[in-house]
Amino acid sequence: MKLVTYRTDVEAPARLGVIDDGIVVDVAGFGEHVGLDLPSRMLDFIDLGPLAVRQLRDAVHSAGGDFGNALALPIETVTLLAPIPRPRKNIFGIGLNYLDHVTESAKALDTDDALPKEPVVFSKPPTAVVGPNQPVRHDANMTQQLDWEVELAVIIGTTTTAVARKNALKRVFGYSVMIDVSARDNRRAGQWIFSKGMDSYAPFGPCIVTADEIPDPQTLDLWLKVNGEEKQNSNTAKMLFKVDELIADLSKGITLEPGDIIATGTPEGVGAGRDPQEWLWPGDVMEAYVEGIGTIRHPIVNASEFK
Amino acid sequence: MKLVTYRTDVEAPARLGVIDDGIVVDVAGFGEHVGLDLPSRMLDFIDLGPLAVRQLRDAVHSAGGDFGNALALPIETVTLLAPIPRPRKNIFGIGLNYLDHVTESAKALDTDDALPKEPVVFSKPPTAVVGPNQPVRHDANMTQQLDWEVELAVIIGTTTTAVARKNALKRVFGYSVMIDVSARDNRRAGQWIFSKGMDSYAPFGPCIVTADEIPDPQTLDLWLKVNGEEKQNSNTAKMLFKVDELIADLSKGITLEPGDIIATGTPEGVGAGRDPQEWLWPGDVMEAYVEGIGTIRHPIVNASEFK
Repeated sequence: MKLVTYRTDVEAPARLGVIDDGIVVDVAGFGEHVGLDLPSRMLDFIDLGPLAVRQLRDAVHSAGGDFGNALALPIETVTLLAPIPRPRKNIFGIGLNYLDHVTESAKALDTDDALPKEPVVFSKPPTAVVGPNQPVRHDANMTQQLDWEVELAVIIGTTTTAVARKNALKRVFGYSVMIDVSARDNRRAGQWIFSKGMDSYAPFGPCIVTADEIPDPQTLDLWLKVNGEEKQNSNTAKMLFKVDELIADLSKGITLEPGDIIATGTPEGVGAGRDPQEWLWPGDVMEAYVEGIGTIRHPIVNASEFK
Repeated sequence: MKLVTYRTDVEAPARLGVIDDGIVVDVAGFGEHVGLDLPSRMLDFIDLGPLAVRQLRDAVHSAGGDFGNALALPIETVTLLAPIPRPRKNIFGIGLNYLDHVTESAKALDTDDALPKEPVVFSKPPTAVVGPNQPVRHDANMTQQLDWEVELAVIIGTTTTAVARKNALKRVFGYSVMIDVSARDNRRAGQWIFSKGMDSYAPFGPCIVTADEIPDPQTLDLWLKVNGEEKQNSNTAKMLFKVDELIADLSKGITLEPGDIIATGTPEGVGAGRDPQEWLWPGDVMEAYVEGIGTIRHPIVNASEFK
């Protein structure tokens, strides 16, 4: 299933929807129609666990397009928000997780050219999240080196402490797309939360694809374009630490919870690694794609327009 | 005011209390008595803003010990939890923020001996928080270098973007005590979230003292003892970046929100910086104090007891 958080207009509350053949079907309303008690928020749905995923999927399949009185609108007519508009904690970010990105980063930035022996983990606050089509803010007082990074995002489904690698993918609720935006000139003493954690630096969407539709997350093409020109193009097969390893590793020390998000790192082709280096400026447009999930598109806008 | 989150017994829900002369007065119940609509959770109270703080303070003062039918129990008879048992995002941690700690860290760890030009920021997930007297877990499979760091914690009161330093302290709801526990042997590529973010690595309490009672947060003695022996003893006057600078700096890029927590860094005397180095082991007890706030006490317990 493709699940979205959407609203019908600017004033309307955000609601959980499921996509069926180009139609956004309101999950809570559809649940009433078929006798399932289903919530109107993505995090509440994730909290229900794997049974609710199966129930909803089966009900949509059986419905054959009959959604009763539930809102059911063509996807072009609704506004998509970030699938989880407000995560309950910082997003876990993974650095240096594709071979050729380790190389370009070591040349251009302050990182080591040796492959990391363990996942490199940082975080981005919930305030960094923006949904599809929302602007990424360029504050010229803060940065002259705003950079892109397309990433596969993993959404955790169940509370997970010290899970073995072979069981780790069972803990995944689904997958999404995230751009890990960075102000490269704001790195501090090796810590990345400030340079990667600023408001609007975590574009996220357009949907969450439930894990049953992506049995192997290490086979997905992903790319990023700036102003229509391809800058990154790789496949999640090239991750150094695979999704199951990341979950097993993090959960050794840090309990993962339903709704937690792991941005799994970016392949080569970031602006800092190009010759000459390239940065994002107001007026630019980023598009980021992960196979089987979809594309998000984000304009870069001068931060002064938000003050 | 000293505000606490407490429960009357293991089964009872966590509630917001205000301390009056050694008595924990239930805030929601007392509010009913005096005609104020006050919540039973700390974060909900912080969300009400500065007016609610003044109203509650004045009402407690005027009550003269008459709390009506509100629960009012001697503090020794209740269980204190972390003042915010579940923060809404990761705690902002500040590294290398006391001169002599920069020096000891450069000798013992992998950090620079030059003073940081800007605050060094990392984060600790909400799952790291434990309340007064709760054990800090020692997992011998993960670490042989478990270390202590006493810190003044700042709790933000109002949404704050790009505040000037001179106005920054007005955005503070209150202050508390946090121990920034670290597994020094789990630092990764300079990123500290994993080594500092494990379950139980953020002891926090015993109360939040509202900002009106601490007009200058840069005058507070703080110390930490292990098994009764003093290991750290300094004063917040020695911070390199003061509380108002930290708020002004972070909020330049990252919007701060009510209930956000900033752990402001630790003075010298950590285990890694001692000669010979000292680490925490199961059976040890840490006590951490900040002047005007109070003391938290945490035993170190073998993590296997939690499985």
